[in-house]
Amino acid sequence: MSERTGRPGSLLDSVKGPRDLKALGADELPRLAAEIRDLLISSTARGGGHLGPNLGVVELTIALHRVFDSPRDRILWDTGHQAYVHKMLTGRAGRFDTLRQEGGLSGYPSQAESEHDVIENSHASTALSYADGLAKAYKLRRESDRTVVAVIGDGALTGGMAWEALNNIAAHKDLPLIIVVNDNGRSYSPTIGGLASHLASLRATQRYEDMLEFVKDNLAKVPVVGSPVYDALHGVKKGIKDVLAPQVMFEDLGLKYIGLVDGHDEQAVEAALRKARDFRRPVIVHVLTKKGFGYSFAENHDEDCFHSPSAFDPLTGEEKPKPHGWTNVFSQEIVRLGAERRDIVAITAAMLGPVGLIPFSEAYPDRLYDVGIAEQHALTSAAGLALGGLHPVVALYATFLNRAFDQLLMDVALHRLPVTVVLDRAGVTGDDGASHNGMWDLSILQIVPGLSVAVPRDEPRLRELLSEAVEVDDGPTVVRYPKGPVAAEIEAVGRLGGMDVLRAGASREGVEGQAEGQGVDSDVLLVSVGPMAELCVEAATLLDAQGISATVVDPRWVRPLDEALVTAAAAHRLVVVVEDNGRVGGVGDAVARTLRDADVDVPVRTYGIPQRFLDHAKRAKILSEIGLTAQDVAREITEAVAKRSPALENNHQPTR
Amino acid sequence: MSERTGRPGSLLDSVKGPRDLKALGADELPRLAAEIRDLLISSTARGGGHLGPNLGVVELTIALHRVFDSPRDRILWDTGHQAYVHKMLTGRAGRFDTLRQEGGLSGYPSQAESEHDVIENSHASTALSYADGLAKAYKLRRESDRTVVAVIGDGALTGGMAWEALNNIAAHKDLPLIIVVNDNGRSYSPTIGGLASHLASLRATQRYEDMLEFVKDNLAKVPVVGSPVYDALHGVKKGIKDVLAPQVMFEDLGLKYIGLVDGHDEQAVEAALRKARDFRRPVIVHVLTKKGFGYSFAENHDEDCFHSPSAFDPLTGEEKPKPHGWTNVFSQEIVRLGAERRDIVAITAAMLGPVGLIPFSEAYPDRLYDVGIAEQHALTSAAGLALGGLHPVVALYATFLNRAFDQLLMDVALHRLPVTVVLDRAGVTGDDGASHNGMWDLSILQIVPGLSVAVPRDEPRLRELLSEAVEVDDGPTVVRYPKGPVAAEIEAVGRLGGMDVLRAGASREGVEGQAEGQGVDSDVLLVSVGPMAELCVEAATLLDAQGISATVVDPRWVRPLDEALVTAAAAHRLVVVVEDNGRVGGVGDAVARTLRDADVDVPVRTYGIPQRFLDHAKRAKILSEIGLTAQDVAREITEAVAKRSPALENNHQPTR
Repeated sequence: MSERTGRPGSLLDSVKGPRDLKALGADELPRLAAEIRDLLISSTARGGGHLGPNLGVVELTIALHRVFDSPRDRILWDTGHQAYVHKMLTGRAGRFDTLRQEGGLSGYPSQAESEHDVIENSHASTALSYADGLAKAYKLRRESDRTVVAVIGDGALTGGMAWEALNNIAAHKDLPLIIVVNDNGRSYSPTIGGLASHLASLRATQRYEDMLEFVKDNLAKVPVVGSPVYDALHGVKKGIKDVLAPQVMFEDLGLKYIGLVDGHDEQAVEAALRKARDFRRPVIVHVLTKKGFGYSFAENHDEDCFHSPSAFDPLTGEEKPKPHGWTNVFSQEIVRLGAERRDIVAITAAMLGPVGLIPFSEAYPDRLYDVGIAEQHALTSAAGLALGGLHPVVALYATFLNRAFDQLLMDVALHRLPVTVVLDRAGVTGDDGASHNGMWDLSILQIVPGLSVAVPRDEPRLRELLSEAVEVDDGPTVVRYPKGPVAAEIEAVGRLGGMDVLRAGASREGVEGQAEGQGVDSDVLLVSVGPMAELCVEAATLLDAQGISATVVDPRWVRPLDEALVTAAAAHRLVVVVEDNGRVGGVGDAVARTLRDADVDVPVRTYGIPQRFLDHAKRAKILSEIGLTAQDVAREITEAVAKRSPALENNHQPTR
Repeated sequence: MSERTGRPGSLLDSVKGPRDLKALGADELPRLAAEIRDLLISSTARGGGHLGPNLGVVELTIALHRVFDSPRDRILWDTGHQAYVHKMLTGRAGRFDTLRQEGGLSGYPSQAESEHDVIENSHASTALSYADGLAKAYKLRRESDRTVVAVIGDGALTGGMAWEALNNIAAHKDLPLIIVVNDNGRSYSPTIGGLASHLASLRATQRYEDMLEFVKDNLAKVPVVGSPVYDALHGVKKGIKDVLAPQVMFEDLGLKYIGLVDGHDEQAVEAALRKARDFRRPVIVHVLTKKGFGYSFAENHDEDCFHSPSAFDPLTGEEKPKPHGWTNVFSQEIVRLGAERRDIVAITAAMLGPVGLIPFSEAYPDRLYDVGIAEQHALTSAAGLALGGLHPVVALYATFLNRAFDQLLMDVALHRLPVTVVLDRAGVTGDDGASHNGMWDLSILQIVPGLSVAVPRDEPRLRELLSEAVEVDDGPTVVRYPKGPVAAEIEAVGRLGGMDVLRAGASREGVEGQAEGQGVDSDVLLVSVGPMAELCVEAATLLDAQGISATVVDPRWVRPLDEALVTAAAAHRLVVVVEDNGRVGGVGDAVARTLRDADVDVPVRTYGIPQRFLDHAKRAKILSEIGLTAQDVAREITEAVAKRSPALENNHQPTR
C-alpha cells in the first residue's frame, strides 16, 4: 500500500504504519510533523482539499497513533475531513498526490483504503454515537481491552446528535471510550452559541491547576471541619478540585474531563491520552488546537483558515479565482430581496461563507442567524420566526437537509408556514464523495404536503424563482441548485401553463405563440429539471437527426407539477424526465404518477442519478459514467421509441 | 366556544379563559385543580388519552395562565400531549367529552381550536427551537413586551434538537424567553442518561438555598481578601451562590436558572414564573412534578404512571384488556430470536413498553439499550454496534423514523451495516392526529441504497419476515406493521418468485402448483402491501362479480421488488398497488418505475393515503374516508378497466 513520498531522507517515508511511528524518538517528531505539513500544503495546493483542519491536527494525530493500537483500538474521525494526517501515518503518504482524484485517495476515511478507517460519512456530529455503539459491542463481546477514541471538533459538538450521544455515554460508566474534543473555536467559521462561550471560559481559566496546588497547601488554615465553608471547599459531592476549577458541563453530565491540553505540544497530548486510556471509563480530553497551524497563509486567513481551498499557490497562498457560480447569484439576490422585504431573515447552519450569506450578514447583521451545525434547529427556529410574522430563508447544502427532514415536514409544513429553504450543492457534487452528493432532496421533498419546489435552470431563473418563492405565504418553498459555475442561459421559446418551452419539436408546428393550455404534439416530450436543460435541448437536437421530433419543457416549479404538463404529455408518444437527483422518488416518478392519476397512460422514461452511493470523481466524469449526457439520453430515447411500436401492439391491444 | 362541564357549582365552568382564571383567589385554586383532575380522569376513562402527564401539570398550567397573558404571550407545549389542562383553561372544558373523537377536541394543541394553541406537531423536543424563533421575531418586530414560554419535559431534553436550541438560546441574551423544565423524571418511562442523573443530583440538593444563607452569614470569618480561597468562595466569575449550589449545566451554557420549584405548590410556581418573566432574558425554571399526581392508580402505576391508557374504570383503575396486537407478536418473536442469536441487541428511544421490548429487556438486560428520545443516536449507535459485530434491532414508531433518516442513510446504509429497524404504528394510526400517522416511511425508505423492506400481512408473516430480516448481514433491513390488533391470517395459494399469491384470478387458470416464475394471466394484478391483503382479496372477489379476473400477490419484501413481479405484470392489462402509506413515493411508485425500467408499459394504478396531513379520527373511519376500502378500490378498478379499452386505441396505436 505505502509508496514513498519521493523526498530524500524522509522520516514520513519510514512510517509504514503506527508501529513505525511508535518506534520514533520524541526528538524526531517535530521533523515528522514538519514533513507532514509540507505534504499537506503541497498536495492540497495542487488539487484543493481540507488544508486548515488537517494542519491543526498534526501533533494530535501523531500522539493518537503513538498511544493507541489502531486498528484494534478504533480511532473515529467525526466529519472526517481532518483525517489526512491519519491517512499519512497509516501507510498512505506515498499516494497523497492522488487525493480526491478518481481512483485515488478519498478526502474522507474509506474502509476500502485501510483497516484503520471506520466512518465514511462526512456529515458532522456522528462519531460519538458510533463510539458508543462500538464500545458497547466490545463490552458484550468481552473485548474490553479495546479502546474506542472519537475525535470531534467543538463545531460538531453543537449538533444535536452529539448531545444525544454524550447523554448516553455518560450513562455507561464502564466503557473505555475517549472523546477527544479538538477545540479550535471554529467549525467552518467560528463556533457559536452557549457551548462555544463555555469552551472559551474553560480556555480562559487554563491555569487553574497551578492555583489548585496553592490552595491545597493552604487548606489547613481554613475553618472548622464540618462547617459549611469547609464542606464547600472540600466539595462534599464533587471533590476539592471542582471548587476552583471552571465548572465543566461535561462533568455535570457525569463525564470525566481532562483538559486543557495544548494540541501542538505532542508530548503533552500523548500524556493526556495515556492518562485517559488507562482510566477505562468514558473520558473527555479537551485539546486546544489552531486551525491552519504552521502555515501562515492558513493561520491568518480571515474567513476560514483555509478550511477547504481549491488549488492555490503554496508560496503566496493565493487561490485561483472561482468562476461565477450559483452561490454568487443567490448571494446577490438575497441581499436585494432583503432590502425590499424587511421581513426576510436568513439562517445558516455554520456555513455562512459557503452558502453565500456573508454579504447578507454584512448588510443586515440583525437578520442573520448562524445556528451552528444544527440543521434541525435551523428549520424549527425558522418555523418559530415564521409564526412570529417573518419570512425566513434557510440556506443549506442539499445533502444536509436530510438532517432536518422531520422538522421541515412536521414543524414547518404541518403548520403551513412560509419558510424558504435554499439548497446549494444539489445534484452530483463529485470530489467529496458519496455523502456530499445532493441526490436525495427532490425525493424526500415530494412527500411533504403543501411544499413547493423550484429548480432554476440558469442564472435569470434562479433570480426569478427565488423571488417567487419568498412571495409564497401559505407554506414552505424550496429552491435548489448545483455546485459550481452557473449553467449556460437558455431562453424560453414559449410557455405552456407555468412551464417554459425551451424547444419545440422540429417536425411539428412550433409552440411559440400558442395559447396557454394548447397541446404540443411532437413525438417525445422532454421534461427538463433545472440545469438539465442544456442536456435536454442537445438531446432533442440529436433526436431530430434521427427523425424523432422532441419538445423540451422546463416546469420551473417541479412540485406541484403544472396541469399543462398532463395535457402536453397526452399529446406525445413518450414522455422523458431528466433530473440531477436520485432516480427513485424524484421528479420522474412524480411526473409518471401525475399522468397515471389523470388516466394518461403515455409511457414515461426517467433519467437521473442511479440510486446508489457514488465514488468520488469530478462531476462531469460522474455524469458521463452514469449516462447523464445528451448522447446517452438521446440514444436511449431512440431505442425506446423503436422498441415501443411492436411492444404496444403486444401488450396493449384491447382484448375486449 | 366554551360550554359547561355540566357539574353544578363548577369553578371550572366559570373559567371561560385566562382572564377568569386570574380573577380567582389563591384559596379557590385547590378546588379548581381538583375539578380539573376529576374531568381529566372521567374523560380519559371513557375514551383513553394522556392521563398521567396531564395530572402532573395541573398546578403548573394554572400558574402559567395566571402569570402570562396568552395569546399575546406564547405558551408552547413540547410534544403537546400534556396540554389538556391548558385546553380546559382556555375555554374548552365543556367539550372534553369529545376528546380525540372525530370532529372533537384534538389530543394535542390545535390552531383551529384556539388562538392559545401554537405547536400541532407531537414529535418531541421541538418547543425550544420554536421559542427561539418566536422570540427573535418579536425582537425584530419590536414587540419585546411579549414573553415566549416553552414547557418541556426532562425526557424531551434528551433529544438532540433541545440541545441545539439551548446552545442557540444561550447565545441570545436579550430574548425574554422562559424554558419551563417539567421534571418528573420520566419520558414515557424513566428518563435515562447523564442528563437524568444531573437532574436527579439537582433534586437531591434542593435545600442548598438554606445552606447558602448560613454561609453568607459566616463568610466574614474566612481568610484574607484576595487569596485564592477567598476568591473561590466569592466566586470571581460565578458569584458566591455557585460555590455551594449544585453545578447546573444550564448555567455552564450561560443560561439563568431558577429552581427547584415544587410543581404541585401552585403559589410557588407562580412566584418562580413571575421572577422569570420579569428577568427579560432567557431563563430556565426547573419545576419538579409527579406524573399521575392526585390519582392513586396513576401515581402507583408501575410501567408508566398511566401515560396514555385506553379506556379504563375510574374507580378501579383497570384498563380494558387489549386485543392481541402486532406489537405482542414482535415482542414474543424478538425474545425467541434473542435466545437463538447472542449477537442480537435491541434499542428503543424511550419507548420500551409501547414497542414491546419489556420482555426482551427482562430476558437479556445487558442487550437492551434505551437511548432516550434520541432517534438519531439510536440509529448511529446501532451502526456502531453493528461495526462491532452485533446485529442491532431498533424498534421505533414509524413516524419517528423521520428523525433519523439521515442516520439510516449515511451512518447505516452507506456502510452496508446489518441493522434491522422495526417500525410499529405504521400506516394510519388515527386518534393521535396528523403527526402520529406512519405514512412516510415506505417513501423515504425507497431512496436508501441497499436497504430491504418487509411488510408482513399477518402474524405468521411478521414472525417469518422478522427472522429473515435479522439474517441479512450486508445491509439494513426494515420490518413495518400497523398499530392495533393483528390482521386476519391469509394463507398463500401459491408462490411467484419470492411473492405469495393470495388469490389467483378466477376467470383464468389458477396459479396453484405453477412452477416459480411462470406467468399468471388474469386481467388485473393486485399487488398488496402487508395488511392491505384482506382488502385486496375482497376487492378481487368483487371484481370477479364484474367479470374482471384479478390475481392478488403479496411481495412480502417490497424493496427490492421481486423480479417475478415484472413478468407477472407484463401478462396483465392493469397493475394495481394498494398500500397503507402516503401515495407519493411509496410502493406504488416503485412498482411503476420498476415496470417502466423493464420496458413494461402496462398501466399502473396506485392506492394509498393521500399526501396530506390527516385529521384525527378512528383508523377505520379514516381508511373509509380516503377510499382505502375493498369497495372503493374495486369500483375504481372497474372504472379504470372500462375506461382503458378506448383510451388504448387513441393514445397508443403505433403511428409509424
